Amino acid sequence: MGDLLGVAVLGAGHMGADHIRRLDRVVSGARVAAVADPDGTRAKEATAGIEGVSVHTDVEAALDAPGVDAVLIASPGPAHEDALLAAFARRLPVLCEKPMVPDSTGALRVVEAEARLGRRLAQIGFMRRYDAEYRQLKSLLDGGDLGRPLMLHCTHRNVSSPPGFTSAMLINSSVSHEIDAARWLLGQELTAVTVLRPRSSAGAPQGLTDPQFVLFETERGALVDVEVFVNCGFGYEVRCEAVCEQGSARIGDTRSMAVTRRGLAGQEVPQDYLVRFADAYEREVQDWVDATRRGEVTGPSAWDGYAASVVAEAGVRALETGARTPVELAPRPELYAAPTR
Amino acid sequence: MGDLLGVAVLGAGHMGADHIRRLDRVVSGARVAAVADPDGTRAKEATAGIEGVSVHTDVEAALDAPGVDAVLIASPGPAHEDALLAAFARRLPVLCEKPMVPDSTGALRVVEAEARLGRRLAQIGFMRRYDAEYRQLKSLLDGGDLGRPLMLHCTHRNVSSPPGFTSAMLINSSVSHEIDAARWLLGQELTAVTVLRPRSSAGAPQGLTDPQFVLFETERGALVDVEVFVNCGFGYEVRCEAVCEQGSARIGDTRSMAVTRRGLAGQEVPQDYLVRFADAYEREVQDWVDATRRGEVTGPSAWDGYAASVVAEAGVRALETGARTPVELAPRPELYAAPTR
Amino acid sequence: MGDLLGVAVLGAGHMGADHIRRLDRVVSGARVAAVADPDGTRAKEATAGIEGVSVHTDVEAALDAPGVDAVLIASPGPAHEDALLAAFARRLPVLCEKPMVPDSTGALRVVEAEARLGRRLAQIGFMRRYDAEYRQLKSLLDGGDLGRPLMLHCTHRNVSSPPGFTSAMLINSSVSHEIDAARWLLGQELTAVTVLRPRSSAGAPQGLTDPQFVLFETERGALVDVEVFVNCGFGYEVRCEAVCEQGSARIGDTRSMAVTRRGLAGQEVPQDYLVRFADAYEREVQDWVDATRRGEVTGPSAWDGYAASVVAEAGVRALETGARTPVELAPRPELYAAPTR
Amino acid sequence: MGDLLGVAVLGAGHMGADHIRRLDRVVSGARVAAVADPDGTRAKEATAGIEGVSVHTDVEAALDAPGVDAVLIASPGPAHEDALLAAFARRLPVLCEKPMVPDSTGALRVVEAEARLGRRLAQIGFMRRYDAEYRQLKSLLDGGDLGRPLMLHCTHRNVSSPPGFTSAMLINSSVSHEIDAARWLLGQELTAVTVLRPRSSAGAPQGLTDPQFVLFETERGALVDVEVFVNCGFGYEVRCEAVCEQGSARIGDTRSMAVTRRGLAGQEVPQDYLVRFADAYEREVQDWVDATRRGEVTGPSAWDGYAASVVAEAGVRALETGARTPVELAPRPELYAAPTR
Repeated sequence: MGDLLGVAVLGAGHMGADHIRRLDRVVSGARVAAVADPDGTRAKEATAGIEGVSVHTDVEAALDAPGVDAVLIASPGPAHEDALLAAFARRLPVLCEKPMVPDSTGALRVVEAEARLGRRLAQIGFMRRYDAEYRQLKSLLDGGDLGRPLMLHCTHRNVSSPPGFTSAMLINSSVSHEIDAARWLLGQELTAVTVLRPRSSAGAPQGLTDPQFVLFETERGALVDVEVFVNCGFGYEVRCEAVCEQGSARIGDTRSMAVTRRGLAGQEVPQDYLVRFADAYEREVQDWVDATRRGEVTGPSAWDGYAASVVAEAGVRALETGARTPVELAPRPELYAAPTR
Repeated sequence: MGDLLGVAVLGAGHMGADHIRRLDRVVSGARVAAVADPDGTRAKEATAGIEGVSVHTDVEAALDAPGVDAVLIASPGPAHEDALLAAFARRLPVLCEKPMVPDSTGALRVVEAEARLGRRLAQIGFMRRYDAEYRQLKSLLDGGDLGRPLMLHCTHRNVSSPPGFTSAMLINSSVSHEIDAARWLLGQELTAVTVLRPRSSAGAPQGLTDPQFVLFETERGALVDVEVFVNCGFGYEVRCEAVCEQGSARIGDTRSMAVTRRGLAGQEVPQDYLVRFADAYEREVQDWVDATRRGEVTGPSAWDGYAASVVAEAGVRALETGARTPVELAPRPELYAAPTR
Repeated sequence: MGDLLGVAVLGAGHMGADHIRRLDRVVSGARVAAVADPDGTRAKEATAGIEGVSVHTDVEAALDAPGVDAVLIASPGPAHEDALLAAFARRLPVLCEKPMVPDSTGALRVVEAEARLGRRLAQIGFMRRYDAEYRQLKSLLDGGDLGRPLMLHCTHRNVSSPPGFTSAMLINSSVSHEIDAARWLLGQELTAVTVLRPRSSAGAPQGLTDPQFVLFETERGALVDVEVFVNCGFGYEVRCEAVCEQGSARIGDTRSMAVTRRGLAGQEVPQDYLVRFADAYEREVQDWVDATRRGEVTGPSAWDGYAASVVAEAGVRALETGARTPVELAPRPELYAAPTR
Repeated sequence: MGDLLGVAVLGAGHMGADHIRRLDRVVSGARVAAVADPDGTRAKEATAGIEGVSVHTDVEAALDAPGVDAVLIASPGPAHEDALLAAFARRLPVLCEKPMVPDSTGALRVVEAEARLGRRLAQIGFMRRYDAEYRQLKSLLDGGDLGRPLMLHCTHRNVSSPPGFTSAMLINSSVSHEIDAARWLLGQELTAVTVLRPRSSAGAPQGLTDPQFVLFETERGALVDVEVFVNCGFGYEVRCEAVCEQGSARIGDTRSMAVTRRGLAGQEVPQDYLVRFADAYEREVQDWVDATRRGEVTGPSAWDGYAASVVAEAGVRALETGARTPVELAPRPELYAAPTR
């Protein structure tokens, strides 16, 4: 490998600061070349002690700063579309946090812009594809030893939801991970969604429909069910069981050290996604840096980002209406392969 | 305890013969006093070596045989109604295998007949209520430490289905266990049912809709989902996870001896219900014998048998129509308490 | 099967009362015909409500009481030898709780007395041989699929020791179970024993050497290590891992319902042997009743009881001296086969 | 952080090449500045595509090459002493693979040389201290919630041993990991060692004593037992259970994805240490690079390397003599703290 990859990081909030730290101290082969955040102080704090980095309040200035070879977008969702198009205009490779673009119309514009370029520049931050257990499961399903998958049973639990979390966000923020994971694991588009509402937990904020039970159908007839429960109180649990024609496989129950005391054999449950998926974030960014230095674009595509938006929007409508809601995708440009399987 | 309880066993087929063996050799305090089966040879074989038993081809003759104190009905479902009414007429306590009566109209007639007697005589053979793990779960839910239950996720898998098994039987034979277990665990009636059909497995017989994914709603808003897959090929798996407001509990993953060899740490999966629920059958019959000798009737009631019939019928309609189907129960006679909780 | 087996139970203390209950209410095919206890009140209380039982303060009177077909010895260890010889004199089959006879000299006299009779009458209460997991492990080892066993790693933990428990009793009361289990699982006699003393736990009573770490060698070169820790405070844990030439197998880690709450995924640890081995006691007594009614004697023999005494005595010497201590058995009478394997 | 740390890697064999790859592509903040290997071709192959690296057949030349800030020693054990002293002479921080020096006399010379310098330069490659589960266990023990540790039960199994592996190497190569882990976890020196020899496995090469069962005593009375079995055939298993006064904790049983098919619920067992401890190697080297760039030396010290040599030598004598063998350490120089706890 040659010189370090100079990365412009857009957004220096919680997620952006974590990516800046990761690029500076954890990931090999990259350096933070520029950071942009409307809040200049925040950007300065996040880059303290890093040599050779320029700090900006303007996205375009950061992209044009010296030494910038690639872009990592960690700004709020509504800012993603402009940032992506600005990076495309400069032919800069991009790693864009999810959601790619919050609304599917904007997401489609990004897809069309990249399709017009005729080559992929964007990778979307669906980091579960980089988790060791998800990769094991994907590899097992692709190997075909268990036969065709018929059902995925998914669980997505958080200890508690942040302030301002809405019933729709259980779908378009939480379940959006399962939307991409299901598309990727099965290699199929999702075609319809239904949302059931069990009684809400006394532990959920007033007015929040929590838990929800979401059902997806796929183009080749598999069924995906997701329990999403963001105020479960007891831990961060992400599980997935694939039921196939000749066997089943389950991930997410892994625990490490077992402690026995006072009549109980117990194992800790992680309390948040940064613990559970720490390795996945590292592997995602390292893979992106490595591929970019080789001149390649791999990983989840803008099409994957777009499809996730469309499904999430259908999910929110299904939550509101209580009805089974079809998912309608635009035609897939040739640039993007069908979901891998 | 005093003399042995003399039991008339109706039906000497697979299940009847097993109960005869159990009463004769395993259960304490009972003896097989009479056996009736239209196939006299079969009845004779099942009672070989048992002293003091009379063998009949006629049900009423068996009930009237000397030494008969109680009745265990293990004949085919269509014969249950007449047998129950004959036992009621003689004021004989009855343990009746499930389904109590295959159709809900007949089941209601049994309920009404017992209600007219003004006291309970019948216990229905929902043996999961006697399984150690189900009892642990019931006790935990009733204790209230986990808060109110919001969802039950259930799995019911068989290695393969017997010849002649129909798509409706996945509901009214297999899922009927989960119907009773959910009513009992939650202490609530089920109020609606929806059946989803993922693609059928290549391992299922031609024309069988297998697996199915069944959703029940309850009177206080809990959601119960059941994966039923009777040709899964890999084992007999019955699992249940209760998701509550302050925690979750899961049964059915218990394995015993762990063997490591050739790169695999493995544990055997039971291949059928007689292995998985052997203890439950013993405990059920022993409890029935003990209670009967004390002059009491405990355990699942005729109302539980009736409710299970009604829900199963609604489930079969839901399978056929694809629509959410309400469950309509007759008024509950005073004799029967609400589902315990 | 014919008439009920009439059993004389000797001893109506904690263990005796439990066996009386088991014979009366749980086990099929037996009845309690007589009970002897020096404390007549205790015997009466233990038999309250049982019909046709005679109560005695004298052992011989109980053995000679009407309806006695067999004997269950649950009196204190020092009374066992006389009781066994009295039963032998009457040709009565016996189930004798462990230890068969506390000292090996007395145990050898029992062996010789039975050998003179020329047929087996005694079964010794090593109930682990009737535990489902131990049987699975035995069956796996006997099947040979894992190759020859090289090591057994055993754990024996109690929450706390009863008053008056001595350092020697960790060997001759607690580890005596592992002594029999190792002989039975491996089908080999134990040939030497060493006892190591880690620092004693602050939770152990003053002066008690607890935990201890005991090493046994076998006649064909296997090594058996046992952690015995009778004041561990956290639960009753009995585990055994067999390490073989082509794989390993582990029992005793089985847990049932898993409960997740407050960041911890936990499973209950049983608190005493009556919970952990409840089924084993039932199966042991039921098997003894069944075999006795068939006129057979199966299960652990007087030789097994004798060998356990000899090994335990060597273990206590090894504890006292700190040295490796050989185990010296008398010649095995023809009546007794070598340890099964 | 400032400039990249330039590392001279000594040794370009299996382990050295892996560290070169790790420094070049995985670890952040470092670059490979020089490589030395007597086999120049091997060094060239291992550095193919790395910019700015110089290749040498001579150790001193590599240490003196431009851009070298620190040294990673991955040459064969007998070359370590000279390499360490050469690095000390240049005041270069060193990460030295285990064993630090194969014989304790040479190891003591290294300790004395560093002590004369008056400051630590060397970190020894006991990478288990960087494994997530070992760190969890260390943290739990140090927290004191379980009370004082009384015993460690350790298992160390390899699928098969490499050609030329001797009975002594089970101690001084395999068990040396447990020697350091026990010292570190307990914060105590080991004071005596005994080695037992169960029958050797038919799967072990002719003449190899495998498995062995090793017992260590510690200065405050804890007992450490290690099953080492390097031809177990079925997997790479490293487990450790700490038994404390108020509870026990176990690591190494962690499995990830569970697959059920054909009657077996199975989880893969890793086949070698590079899979099991991949993360530990990364974390070890990353931590060393980070600390070195901060001007600090952390991690296992030369004293830890020396103590491990002394214990391993005593272990080999114990294997040969069959006797309990005391461990005699030289006085600990002030530079080195007592084992942490």
